[in-house]
Amino acid sequence: MADSFAALIQLLAKLPGLGPRSARRAALFLLKRRESLMQPLAAAMAEAAQRIRACSTCGNLDTADPCAICADPRRDAGLVCVVEDVADLWAIERTGAYAGRYHVLGGTLSALDGIGPEDLGIDALARRGAQGVREIILAMNATVEGQTTAHYIMDRLAALPLQVSRLAHGVPVGGELDYLDEGTLSAALASRQVLKGAG
Amino acid sequence: MADSFAALIQLLAKLPGLGPRSARRAALFLLKRRESLMQPLAAAMAEAAQRIRACSTCGNLDTADPCAICADPRRDAGLVCVVEDVADLWAIERTGAYAGRYHVLGGTLSALDGIGPEDLGIDALARRGAQGVREIILAMNATVEGQTTAHYIMDRLAALPLQVSRLAHGVPVGGELDYLDEGTLSAALASRQVLKGAG
Repeated sequence: MADSFAALIQLLAKLPGLGPRSARRAALFLLKRRESLMQPLAAAMAEAAQRIRACSTCGNLDTADPCAICADPRRDAGLVCVVEDVADLWAIERTGAYAGRYHVLGGTLSALDGIGPEDLGIDALARRGAQGVREIILAMNATVEGQTTAHYIMDRLAALPLQVSRLAHGVPVGGELDYLDEGTLSAALASRQVLKGAG
Repeated sequence: MADSFAALIQLLAKLPGLGPRSARRAALFLLKRRESLMQPLAAAMAEAAQRIRACSTCGNLDTADPCAICADPRRDAGLVCVVEDVADLWAIERTGAYAGRYHVLGGTLSALDGIGPEDLGIDALARRGAQGVREIILAMNATVEGQTTAHYIMDRLAALPLQVSRLAHGVPVGGELDYLDEGTLSAALASRQVLKGAG
């Protein structure tokens, strides 16, 4: 196998979701689509590596700083949604149901990996919270790490005169009770919504 | 989402094994490893797209033409192994058990997709067969398409004074009979190897 081929496969195999075998398949697939895919992808990658940077306000990735969301005057600057990762920001943006700003942590607190509050920009979040923010929504993943981080952030924000909320737990839309784990079902029961009062 | 980001994700999603969701993950993964992965991968891709070409003798992909295998004098030019795809050539090379040359078809005969013998270089194979080749090994996949193509090639080579063989069917090494399909087991029975004669 040619050296430049082996190098390509080795790099492709580092992508999440691709192992050595699928990296070989991907490399062959690319070589068969040189003009239509391989060269455009190489160019797009080089361009993105050069132009995309983290927004200094919220941590979102964009070609502009501040990012398009922070720079948009139609988005409510009084509402800040805290997410672990840019992928979570995209997930919320895809709903089209949120018109506030964001704060991207870039991870969760982890004593094991040596990730402390300063690595996640929690000081910056507290400073933003003190400057005209009405509500901070904690939208961390419902994992132990995510919830630990959420608790820590809540403690840090406790003294500030703003509302702190978190995403609701419950039955996923379209989900079947029979297949749901006990934790989610318990949370859905505890947070049940009243449809009609007792009166 | 920034335009250059969206373009990158759209191109990544075209790779085999990556869908829209995993392409987003891969793009974020790359952007977090700009220097260590993203720029090297972009460069490797651009270089491979420019330098790697099909060997005009055997169809293998390499930076040189003839490819390293065709140019290697230690490899037996009298033995040609016919494979569907470069990935199959690599698979055979990984065994380290083959020291002949190759012929890469680049697909299988398919009336539906309009792929005829001329698209697979079968004429070129017949010409190679007429020039000092002792044996041609048909190593197509054990699929209907692969075996149809193998039959066609065998017919084309019938008049030439050379041996034509195919890979053995049988129990995979480490395989359990209980989990084997009937076709493989029948083939293994029919091709059983004598350990001790009746005498």
